Amino acid sequence: MSTSTIHGIIGYTITPFSAKGQDLDLDALGRSIDRLIESGVHAIAPLGSTGEGAYLSDAEWDQVAEFSIKQVNRRVPTIVSVSDLTTAKAVRRARFAERHGADVVMVLPASYWKLTEDEIYAHYRAIGESVGVPIMLYNNPATSGTDMSVDLILRIVKGVENVTMVKESTGDIQRMHKLHVLGEGLVPFYNGCNPLALEAFVAGAKGWCTAAPNLIPQLNLDLYQAVLNKDIAQARDLFYRQLPLLDFMLKGGLPATIKAGLRSTGLEVGDPRLPVFPLEEEAQRTLKDLLAALR
Amino acid sequence: MSTSTIHGIIGYTITPFSAKGQDLDLDALGRSIDRLIESGVHAIAPLGSTGEGAYLSDAEWDQVAEFSIKQVNRRVPTIVSVSDLTTAKAVRRARFAERHGADVVMVLPASYWKLTEDEIYAHYRAIGESVGVPIMLYNNPATSGTDMSVDLILRIVKGVENVTMVKESTGDIQRMHKLHVLGEGLVPFYNGCNPLALEAFVAGAKGWCTAAPNLIPQLNLDLYQAVLNKDIAQARDLFYRQLPLLDFMLKGGLPATIKAGLRSTGLEVGDPRLPVFPLEEEAQRTLKDLLAALR
Amino acid sequence: MSTSTIHGIIGYTITPFSAKGQDLDLDALGRSIDRLIESGVHAIAPLGSTGEGAYLSDAEWDQVAEFSIKQVNRRVPTIVSVSDLTTAKAVRRARFAERHGADVVMVLPASYWKLTEDEIYAHYRAIGESVGVPIMLYNNPATSGTDMSVDLILRIVKGVENVTMVKESTGDIQRMHKLHVLGEGLVPFYNGCNPLALEAFVAGAKGWCTAAPNLIPQLNLDLYQAVLNKDIAQARDLFYRQLPLLDFMLKGGLPATIKAGLRSTGLEVGDPRLPVFPLEEEAQRTLKDLLAALR
Amino acid sequence: MSTSTIHGIIGYTITPFSAKGQDLDLDALGRSIDRLIESGVHAIAPLGSTGEGAYLSDAEWDQVAEFSIKQVNRRVPTIVSVSDLTTAKAVRRARFAERHGADVVMVLPASYWKLTEDEIYAHYRAIGESVGVPIMLYNNPATSGTDMSVDLILRIVKGVENVTMVKESTGDIQRMHKLHVLGEGLVPFYNGCNPLALEAFVAGAKGWCTAAPNLIPQLNLDLYQAVLNKDIAQARDLFYRQLPLLDFMLKGGLPATIKAGLRSTGLEVGDPRLPVFPLEEEAQRTLKDLLAALR
Repeated sequence: MSTSTIHGIIGYTITPFSAKGQDLDLDALGRSIDRLIESGVHAIAPLGSTGEGAYLSDAEWDQVAEFSIKQVNRRVPTIVSVSDLTTAKAVRRARFAERHGADVVMVLPASYWKLTEDEIYAHYRAIGESVGVPIMLYNNPATSGTDMSVDLILRIVKGVENVTMVKESTGDIQRMHKLHVLGEGLVPFYNGCNPLALEAFVAGAKGWCTAAPNLIPQLNLDLYQAVLNKDIAQARDLFYRQLPLLDFMLKGGLPATIKAGLRSTGLEVGDPRLPVFPLEEEAQRTLKDLLAALR
Repeated sequence: MSTSTIHGIIGYTITPFSAKGQDLDLDALGRSIDRLIESGVHAIAPLGSTGEGAYLSDAEWDQVAEFSIKQVNRRVPTIVSVSDLTTAKAVRRARFAERHGADVVMVLPASYWKLTEDEIYAHYRAIGESVGVPIMLYNNPATSGTDMSVDLILRIVKGVENVTMVKESTGDIQRMHKLHVLGEGLVPFYNGCNPLALEAFVAGAKGWCTAAPNLIPQLNLDLYQAVLNKDIAQARDLFYRQLPLLDFMLKGGLPATIKAGLRSTGLEVGDPRLPVFPLEEEAQRTLKDLLAALR
Repeated sequence: MSTSTIHGIIGYTITPFSAKGQDLDLDALGRSIDRLIESGVHAIAPLGSTGEGAYLSDAEWDQVAEFSIKQVNRRVPTIVSVSDLTTAKAVRRARFAERHGADVVMVLPASYWKLTEDEIYAHYRAIGESVGVPIMLYNNPATSGTDMSVDLILRIVKGVENVTMVKESTGDIQRMHKLHVLGEGLVPFYNGCNPLALEAFVAGAKGWCTAAPNLIPQLNLDLYQAVLNKDIAQARDLFYRQLPLLDFMLKGGLPATIKAGLRSTGLEVGDPRLPVFPLEEEAQRTLKDLLAALR
Repeated sequence: MSTSTIHGIIGYTITPFSAKGQDLDLDALGRSIDRLIESGVHAIAPLGSTGEGAYLSDAEWDQVAEFSIKQVNRRVPTIVSVSDLTTAKAVRRARFAERHGADVVMVLPASYWKLTEDEIYAHYRAIGESVGVPIMLYNNPATSGTDMSVDLILRIVKGVENVTMVKESTGDIQRMHKLHVLGEGLVPFYNGCNPLALEAFVAGAKGWCTAAPNLIPQLNLDLYQAVLNKDIAQARDLFYRQLPLLDFMLKGGLPATIKAGLRSTGLEVGDPRLPVFPLEEEAQRTLKDLLAALR
C-alpha cells in the first residue's frame, strides 16, 4: 500500500480483557474495531499504548495482532505497534504483523537502559531490513523514556528506507515545526498528543493518532474536516468543544478512560491490567458528564 | 482607553545605545518607533525584554519611558513594561508610565528569591491599586525565574480589577488552551513566544507581542490578517515562511538580533549592554541571508 | 533470614550471553558469581539492571534466577530482582525466587503508563502478600520512569509488612537525608547510585548496591571499611581513587562496561542484548587504562 | 590577603530594614555582624542572597558594603557580593568593595537574558581585570537563572587570574566531585547549599557559605570541627541534628527565616523587602520550636 493513504483520524484500539484482566476477550475486541470503522475513522491501530501492548505476553500479543488485522479486513489500513525492549523481539513482531497483513508497523524505541542515538538508529535499521511494509517511527518520551531529537528522527528517515512516517507525541508543537522545516515538507508527520490536535493539523500533520474515536468519533472527524476546509474558526470551535474530554483522557490514562467510556456505552471490555487501575467511581461520573455534554 | 483595542501585532522596541553602550540614543529610538508605526503595527511596547529594560538605570528607564510615549503620540496604544525586583520600584514605574500617558503597563514578576503565589498576587495587587490604566500580566519563566500557573493567573485577573490581559511566553501552547477554557473565553491572552505565533492565533490569542516587526512587519501583519480571514492554509504558509527568522531571533537573543538587523537596514542603534554580546559576524551574515530571502 | 544481615557491598551480577546475545551462558554466570563471592562481597544480587533482567524472556529469567541462587548456595545472601510491568508477573517472579531460595526480592515499579501513588502501593502490597521473604523497594526513575517520593516510600514501608529495605538510586543525596529523618532512623536504606557511594555511606546507608565489585571489589570493600572505621579522610581518598571508574561505568552503561571489563580480565561473558551496544573500542581502551591505574 | 585563609564557616549577613522595609538600619546591621564574629565564624559575607543585595538601590548597596567592611574591621576576612546584571555595574561594585577594604569579592553571573559561555567568561574577565582582590565565582542557577558547567568554571579559573575560589550551590554533590577531579584538587570550592553541608565537607569543600550562623553558630562550627577531626560518626550526628533547621531555612527563604529568627532572639532587623513576605505566624512558631530543640 502507498504510505500516502495514511491520513486523517487513526483510531487506536483497546485490548479487552475478561474479568480480573486474566484473559483476552477477542469478541469484544472485534466489536470495538467494527464500531471504530463504522464511525468513519481512516485507519485502525492495534496494540499501541492504549492497547496495553506492553502488558501482554508474547502469545497474547500474537493473538491480538492476528485477530485485529483479520477483523479490519482491509476496510481501512491497519497500523500495528510492534515495539519491544529488545531488537530481536521487535523484529519478530514486525515480521509477524507483516505476515498477517498489517499495512504499516509502528515502532517506539522502548528502553530500560537509556539508548544512544546510534543504538536507536541500529534498532530501526534492523527492523526496517526485516520487513517490507512502511514503518511509522513513534517518539513518546513519556512512555519510552527516550526522546528522539528531530535531527535523529530525520537521520533515521533518510537512512532506513521504509521508515516513511513520524508520529510525534512529546506535546511540543515546535517539534512538528522543526520536522516540517528540516524535512523540507517531505516527511509526513502525525500527531500523537490529543490536546495538540488542533495545532498539529494547523502545523501540517497528516493525521491524528488517537483513542478518542472510541468515544467521540464524529467530533474527531469534524475537526479534521474543518482543517481540510481551511476554516480556522470552525476548527477552533470544534477543538475547544472536545478539549475537556481530551484532557480528561490524558489525565485519567488512556486504557482506563477509554475502557470506562466504552462500558458506559454498553460495550463491556473489562479493566486495564494491574498495576494500572480502572477509572475510579468519581472519575467515571465525570466522564459520563463530559460525554453527555458532547451529545 | 478600552482594553479591547489592544490586539494584533504589538511591536516591541529596542533601546538604542551610543558606542560602547554607555549612553542612550533617543534620536535613534524615535526613528525606530516611527518605522514600526509606519509599518502598520497595532501597538508599541517599550522597555520590554527586547528593550533591555532590566539593564537600564532608573534615570535611563524614566527617560526611555517618557520619550517613547511622547514619540508614539497616541498614533497607536503604548504598553510600557514596568517590571522591577521590588514592589516599591515597580509601583513607582507604573505610576510614572501612567502619568506620562501610557495606555497599558505590563508587569513580569521578576524575582531573585523564588516567589510564592501569595507574594506574586500581592505584588500585582499593589501595582493594580497604584494606577488606573489596565495591566497586562506577563508570564515568562525563562527570564523571570517564576512560572505562574494558569490558576494563579486567573486568581490575579479575578482579584485585581485592572489586570485585564495576559501575555503568555512559556512556549507551551496548552497554557493558552487552559487560559481559554478556565477563563471561559473571557480573558484576552497575547502570545509572547515568536515560534508559537501561528498556533497562538489559532488557539484564540488576541495579539502577538513581538520584536519581529522591527525587521519583517509585513509578514507579521499578513499572518494576523490570514487568521482574521480564517484561512488555515494561507496562515500556515505565511508562518513557515517567517519561522526560520523567528527561530533565529530566539536563538540569537532579541536585543542582539534586532539591533544587528536594524543596523543592516541602515538604522544604527548600537549594541546590547554587556554582558550581552552583539551578534557575531557569522550570525550577522546568516541574518542578512534570512532577511534577503524574505524580500 | 533477618534483614539486618543485608549490609555492606552488595554485588550485582551480569547475565552472560553466548555469541550474538541469543543464548544464556550459565557456565560463565557461575564463574562470575564465584569471583564476586570470593572477592568478599556481602551479598549477591542477580537480575537487576546490570543483569539485563528486563531483556530476558520469562523462561530465561527463571533459569537465571534458579541457577544464581543455587550457585550462591547461601555463602552470602541472595537478593533477586523480580520487577515486571504487570503485577501478576511480578508476583509470579517473586514466588519463583522465594521457592528457589532467594533471601530477599527487590522490586522496582517498572511502568509504561505512569503509575499513581495508589497503583504503586497496591503493586507492592500484592507482591508483599504473595511471599514471606523481605522485599527491598527500589527507586530508580531513570530506568523505571516512576519517581517515588520519600512520603510514598514510607507509606509502603509502613503498610506492607515485608517491605523492610529501601534502595535509592535517584542520585539526589537529599532523598537519603529525608529517608533518615522521616523514617526516624529506622528504615534501612541502600545506595544504588555509584557516584554517591561516599556520601550515601556518610549519610547512613547500610549498603551499596553496585556492579563495581565485578571489576574493583577491593576498593569497594575498602571504602566501606573506612566508613566503618569512621575515617573521613581515608574514605574520601578511597572514593576519589575509584570515582573515575564509577563515572565511566555510569556513562558507558553498566551491562556494556562490566561485560567489557570482565572480558579484559579473561572472563568471557558476551555482549549486552541489542539494542544495547557493547562498549566501543575506544571506550574499551579507556576502561583498560582506568582499571590498570587502580591496580 | 592570601586566599588560603578563606575556610570554615563563612557567615552571611542579613540587611536590616526599618519598619516597612524603606530604610536601612545600619545600627542593627552592626550588631548582627558583631554577633556573628563573636560566635566564632571564620569570615563574614555581606550583600549575598541572604543580604537582599539584589533588592537594594545603588546608594543603599554602597552604604551597606562600606559599613559592613568597617564594622568587621579585619577581625575576620570580608567577602562582598558584587553581582549585577550589567558588567559595568558589577565592575563598579567590585572596585568600590576593594577600595573600602573587602578581602574577597563574590560574583554570581546574574542574568535576564540567558548568557552564553563566552558572555559569562567575558563578564568574569572584565571584573577580574578591574580589581586586585581574589574573586569567588558563585554558581547558583536557582537565583541567577544561569547554570555554569564545571568545564566553564574551570575555564574561568584558568583564564582569569584572580578567580581563585568557587562557591557551588546547585545542590548536586556530583558537581563538587567533578570540580575536585577535573580541578586536580587545586581549586578550592565552597558549599552554598545548606542541606549538603555534611557531604560537601566530606567531598573536600574548604568552607560552608551559610546564613545559619546567625541562628545556630555553634552547631555549624562543631560540624566543621568534626570534619577536621575526620570523625564521620560525630559529623553525621551533628549534621542530622541541625538538618531540620537547615531545611526549614531553605523552604522558608533565607531573608525571611533569618530575620524572624534574629527577632526571636531579641535583635530586631525588620522584614524582607516586598514582594518577599516576612515569615508567616505559623512558620514563626515552627522556627521557635526548631531553635528551642537545638539549645
